[in-house]
Amino acid sequence: MSRGRLYGIGVGPGDSELLTLKAVRIIAESDIIAYAAPKESGESMARGIASPHIPRGKSEYPIYIPMLASNEPASRIYDEAAFDLAKAMDSGKQVAVLCEGDPFFYGSFMYLFARLHEDYECETVAGVSSILAGAAVAGMPLAARNDSLTVLPAPMSDEALTRHLQITSAAVIIKLGRHFSRIGQLFESLDLIGNACYISHATHAKQVVLPLQEAFAMGIEAPYFSLILWHKEGNAWLSPQL
Amino acid sequence: MSRGRLYGIGVGPGDSELLTLKAVRIIAESDIIAYAAPKESGESMARGIASPHIPRGKSEYPIYIPMLASNEPASRIYDEAAFDLAKAMDSGKQVAVLCEGDPFFYGSFMYLFARLHEDYECETVAGVSSILAGAAVAGMPLAARNDSLTVLPAPMSDEALTRHLQITSAAVIIKLGRHFSRIGQLFESLDLIGNACYISHATHAKQVVLPLQEAFAMGIEAPYFSLILWHKEGNAWLSPQL
Repeated sequence: MSRGRLYGIGVGPGDSELLTLKAVRIIAESDIIAYAAPKESGESMARGIASPHIPRGKSEYPIYIPMLASNEPASRIYDEAAFDLAKAMDSGKQVAVLCEGDPFFYGSFMYLFARLHEDYECETVAGVSSILAGAAVAGMPLAARNDSLTVLPAPMSDEALTRHLQITSAAVIIKLGRHFSRIGQLFESLDLIGNACYISHATHAKQVVLPLQEAFAMGIEAPYFSLILWHKEGNAWLSPQL
Repeated sequence: MSRGRLYGIGVGPGDSELLTLKAVRIIAESDIIAYAAPKESGESMARGIASPHIPRGKSEYPIYIPMLASNEPASRIYDEAAFDLAKAMDSGKQVAVLCEGDPFFYGSFMYLFARLHEDYECETVAGVSSILAGAAVAGMPLAARNDSLTVLPAPMSDEALTRHLQITSAAVIIKLGRHFSRIGQLFESLDLIGNACYISHATHAKQVVLPLQEAFAMGIEAPYFSLILWHKEGNAWLSPQL
């Protein structure tokens, strides 16, 4: 009996029609469908996005991740999940791990990949990441020509964020969550807020797209899966004289 | 008669199976399939990627782009293309513009979008960009946790590139082409070359994946569609202790 393989599948940002043909095929061919799910509610965003493409009766393996500041317990959880999935692959099962967006763009699949790729055949199927989907729904291209484009996680310090924002042409701030109002203030104090757009759950039923200035003034509660797009020229560079 | 719509369709990095379900549907539903093609050879990369999904007998509209340093003539070409596509939409035709990777990630679709989005319904369908596909085929995640990730076009000056590389956790150098040996030298002089990977045509039949050091030593001719992935810790951070 030959060993099964491990696939990390990018299921895209939210719209179930934004899975790739390859993602849909690998899901259909796999024996076990795994995905991260929050410890408390148990609902997995990745599974929700892929659900129309998961054939009935597939084995599922949710990996319950507690939302904690320290990563020590999460590390133990990935150890356990890797152990279970390795056992399944040893018995010939093919495993597909569903990942929101793209697996290797700030995705948790890499923690399983790190534990298994030396001993098992692993393949990553790239997916549409939220920053691309955000640009699409906002009608705001991320970058063009010789622009630099910097992706910055919101938990970074104001000092580090500022250092990047001062030298880059365009930026995306990801993982806003509870950092949103601090980031809004930073954009205001750096006088960048007018050229920025707030987006949550791009292409998903829950999608919100607002000028950052408006979202900030409203004091909205930004979810973890929300982001800010900024270009030094806003959308002004999108002129027909381009 | 109602006006037709304009779609910018990301067809992904190279593998025809990496189109999204939505991209395939919109191509099938559209009346005219447009794409950029190099002036001289006439072969469009975007069309090649999407070709298994273009139904026989569709009208096609190649936009021939000369590869020039100045953008003045290209600007006239987009004016003409926008004029022709507007006329088609006025007569009720739906137009799909095929774009390698993602339309709003350094894509030329934005030049048509800029000319048409105020007067016509335009929608961008995000696609898998080459940087995500590159990470997947190299087995090298782009970024994790609170890493900053900077996308840098190779034509940028050494000084500007260095400024970014000195403060970011991870970077992707895109559009290598004739800049490859200069960039290789820069990575060597900054002592970053050991943690970098060279990739061309990710997921395409022509795919090449090499440690940057090796590609640089070989003096390969890097095509325009090639890139360098770099992470300050190389792949060392991909340890099971993650």
